[in-house]
Amino acid sequence: MVVGRVPQNRKARGMSADTIVVYGHDLVNEIIGRWSFAELVYAAITDGSRPTTAQARLIDVLLTTFVDHGVTPSSLAARLTFLGAPEAMQAAVAAGLNGAGSRYLGTMQQAAEMLRDAVLEHKVSRSDPRLSTIACEIVDAYRMAASPIPGLGHPEHKSGDPRTPALMRIARETELAGVHCELLFALGEAYRQRSGKQLPVNAAGLAGAIVIDMGLPPEAAKGLALIGRAGGLVGVVLSELRQPTAQQIWDGLR
Amino acid sequence: MVVGRVPQNRKARGMSADTIVVYGHDLVNEIIGRWSFAELVYAAITDGSRPTTAQARLIDVLLTTFVDHGVTPSSLAARLTFLGAPEAMQAAVAAGLNGAGSRYLGTMQQAAEMLRDAVLEHKVSRSDPRLSTIACEIVDAYRMAASPIPGLGHPEHKSGDPRTPALMRIARETELAGVHCELLFALGEAYRQRSGKQLPVNAAGLAGAIVIDMGLPPEAAKGLALIGRAGGLVGVVLSELRQPTAQQIWDGLR
Amino acid sequence: MVVGRVPQNRKARGMSADTIVVYGHDLVNEIIGRWSFAELVYAAITDGSRPTTAQARLIDVLLTTFVDHGVTPSSLAARLTFLGAPEAMQAAVAAGLNGAGSRYLGTMQQAAEMLRDAVLEHKVSRSDPRLSTIACEIVDAYRMAASPIPGLGHPEHKSGDPRTPALMRIARETELAGVHCELLFALGEAYRQRSGKQLPVNAAGLAGAIVIDMGLPPEAAKGLALIGRAGGLVGVVLSELRQPTAQQIWDGLR
Amino acid sequence: MVVGRVPQNRKARGMSADTIVVYGHDLVNEIIGRWSFAELVYAAITDGSRPTTAQARLIDVLLTTFVDHGVTPSSLAARLTFLGAPEAMQAAVAAGLNGAGSRYLGTMQQAAEMLRDAVLEHKVSRSDPRLSTIACEIVDAYRMAASPIPGLGHPEHKSGDPRTPALMRIARETELAGVHCELLFALGEAYRQRSGKQLPVNAAGLAGAIVIDMGLPPEAAKGLALIGRAGGLVGVVLSELRQPTAQQIWDGLR
Repeated sequence: MVVGRVPQNRKARGMSADTIVVYGHDLVNEIIGRWSFAELVYAAITDGSRPTTAQARLIDVLLTTFVDHGVTPSSLAARLTFLGAPEAMQAAVAAGLNGAGSRYLGTMQQAAEMLRDAVLEHKVSRSDPRLSTIACEIVDAYRMAASPIPGLGHPEHKSGDPRTPALMRIARETELAGVHCELLFALGEAYRQRSGKQLPVNAAGLAGAIVIDMGLPPEAAKGLALIGRAGGLVGVVLSELRQPTAQQIWDGLR
Repeated sequence: MVVGRVPQNRKARGMSADTIVVYGHDLVNEIIGRWSFAELVYAAITDGSRPTTAQARLIDVLLTTFVDHGVTPSSLAARLTFLGAPEAMQAAVAAGLNGAGSRYLGTMQQAAEMLRDAVLEHKVSRSDPRLSTIACEIVDAYRMAASPIPGLGHPEHKSGDPRTPALMRIARETELAGVHCELLFALGEAYRQRSGKQLPVNAAGLAGAIVIDMGLPPEAAKGLALIGRAGGLVGVVLSELRQPTAQQIWDGLR
Repeated sequence: MVVGRVPQNRKARGMSADTIVVYGHDLVNEIIGRWSFAELVYAAITDGSRPTTAQARLIDVLLTTFVDHGVTPSSLAARLTFLGAPEAMQAAVAAGLNGAGSRYLGTMQQAAEMLRDAVLEHKVSRSDPRLSTIACEIVDAYRMAASPIPGLGHPEHKSGDPRTPALMRIARETELAGVHCELLFALGEAYRQRSGKQLPVNAAGLAGAIVIDMGLPPEAAKGLALIGRAGGLVGVVLSELRQPTAQQIWDGLR
Repeated sequence: MVVGRVPQNRKARGMSADTIVVYGHDLVNEIIGRWSFAELVYAAITDGSRPTTAQARLIDVLLTTFVDHGVTPSSLAARLTFLGAPEAMQAAVAAGLNGAGSRYLGTMQQAAEMLRDAVLEHKVSRSDPRLSTIACEIVDAYRMAASPIPGLGHPEHKSGDPRTPALMRIARETELAGVHCELLFALGEAYRQRSGKQLPVNAAGLAGAIVIDMGLPPEAAKGLALIGRAGGLVGVVLSELRQPTAQQIWDGLR
């Protein structure tokens, strides 16, 4: 682990009364109006790189996929927090994020780590004929340990997570999908062969694979999901402002 | 206050094993790959509307402007939280958001409310010749009360917040800038006339004015800032993963 | 506002490998086993003073009164957060605290501020014959403004908050109840006279009065409530560990 | 895992306009003024039991030991959060708690789990002559795996955590210290024998052992530490109100 320097002070980072520097780029003359939010997020998680058009498109799609929607534990926690602390919208959004933990976002990071480790270990690259053998070995190991395989299956979408083909289509169009996506689908196929049962690739697992294919660390998958969820949670709080529901939710439970 | 219904259950919102409905739109067939993140955020904060191209562009620029960067109290809180709880990246981002309160984001919402109330009270619209008179009245009232005028001045950028002209240029290009932006600049001019001193329009105030010109509530300005900051805070945590600094920050203080 | 020094480093605070100094006291030789938790909380909120026996008893009773219990928005938010992030118990407790805001704890602080300001303005002390006149003036002002009077009334306990007499009994026994408690009960009596309706003193308002009578700032009332609630929320999370309910709560709502 | 019922509604828990029931006890007639805060915390974490005098004393001492003090990552995060959001004291305390994660409080829970598992596996009880052999086996296993032994050693207090003897003295006085405390000290002794180096028992590990000796789950150790830290963090926020330091901390870093 490389121990970094304490974040540089403003002068060192090039800030003056006239210039604001963000990840090494001039906010006013370079970024505002020229970079999309997805591009700036990519710079944020890579410490300064501007993405290609394809990378920016894929980041944007990942953010979009993880906007929290509907009635989730996170959105309920945000509504109930806002009921008690309407003076602090930020605290309601933060309460919702606090629940975006291992149980929902863990899959994504575990799938990313499993795929990265297997690809590193076997030194495979795209279209490698060994991928199906490797997939079978991984499936056998998880089945032997009676552990769920990260990235496969969905509690509700039994016959297939509908987001998976949509996400994969974009990943292919951007030509950024690579060996980690391939290995993930090979795992789904290997599972079918070995167990005779369907356990299709889920969107969280695919997002994890895409993030590794983009050269980002596994934690970036979780980070992108958190930003998407922040978008959804802000929507939840504004919806609560327009049409309060938290009191009724509470009344229905006590 | 209209009391809303308890959020509809999934069936009522059209969810099935095959369809995921987000703000009234089919996530898989309508949104993924077709809507940008900024468009989905607009839908989230308006409860379902898809923005025009101009509106989506302006939302994206506002998100970009508020990506938290550099060494801020929020980013320091996120780094220090991650030091103690590396198992929970979400908690570090949430800790950073918890500090995105009235002192930094209050200006935006106060400016938005002040401008909205003045426009409603005086029933003025774009290019109204009464704007400068109204601006003078507001300035006089705040000066009489010895209160700072929301949206004017910046503790560091004394001769002008450099983000203001950049943000205003985009707002004009999108043709969404309206009477609230005009009134805000009229306030800056009125202040100069009455006091003989410069107190230029700041970016937070302008963001507040733009949000009202877009027909959104004042709280949407704060909401957009929170999403942008979530982007910055995720970047901060990933930077802390690559190059830990929190221990050194702590060591330097104790 | 007195700007303080940056918190002293460890050497300056007397810490060495052998000594741990907490609020100016030796943790090992002076505090552990000799001070109660309530005494240490008093030292924390006063920056170091050890309370008298009576003060410590009253602090302990206030902490006890605010232990969050039953099905509250805060406890629900904690349960739902723990469902998503079981790896981070602290995040569930923090989510619950995030909702301990103005709507539930605001009363306490507002009552404390109102009572402190009135006592300062009129320079009244215990048993002052002017208290009932002052109370009538305050009641008239709030009724004229159609504002609720902080510390009076309770949405559920219409005929009287049952905690009020219990809390007041202890406050009297400790001989720490003073003019602020007296003025609060005078407000209840004044309201009855002026409106002909009952609006009994609630426990939050009385806690605010007691805190001011103890010479503590209004924010200390909120602080004590937060510590008490942290106790309740830890209980909620441990109960969720023993008998998970959050999934069912969620299932019942979607 | 026993799936619990959805928390009972108020009627079922015995609440009426006249009675408030907390963990099965009447708040007004039974608890306020009769139970200490430590007793109520014990009831909260055991779902209703009133502790013996000895148990209550030990709970109180554990809460006291973990009051967050001095300049810690948690207290710094709380100060910096309060700087940005002074309207929401709860959010500053919550930000501080968010960092009370695995790195600082993990030790306690890991030590508790290690000791509980070893005692269960070997079916040992107090003063069992096999304890030193078991301790040697555990030490050998950890040394073989090159893993740190939870509960031993302290980064600063090299020659011994000064809180350990103080905490152990009380645990002995209450007669609640049992086989888990014994095994922990046996581990320290076994480490000395096997490695020839001192690695004394730390306070976090001892707290974990005490909690198991009291018949509580390992998570209760973390829960008690969170309540203690909430006490310290409220003190930190009140100290920040009296003497603001966060702006200076920030200025010193940027």
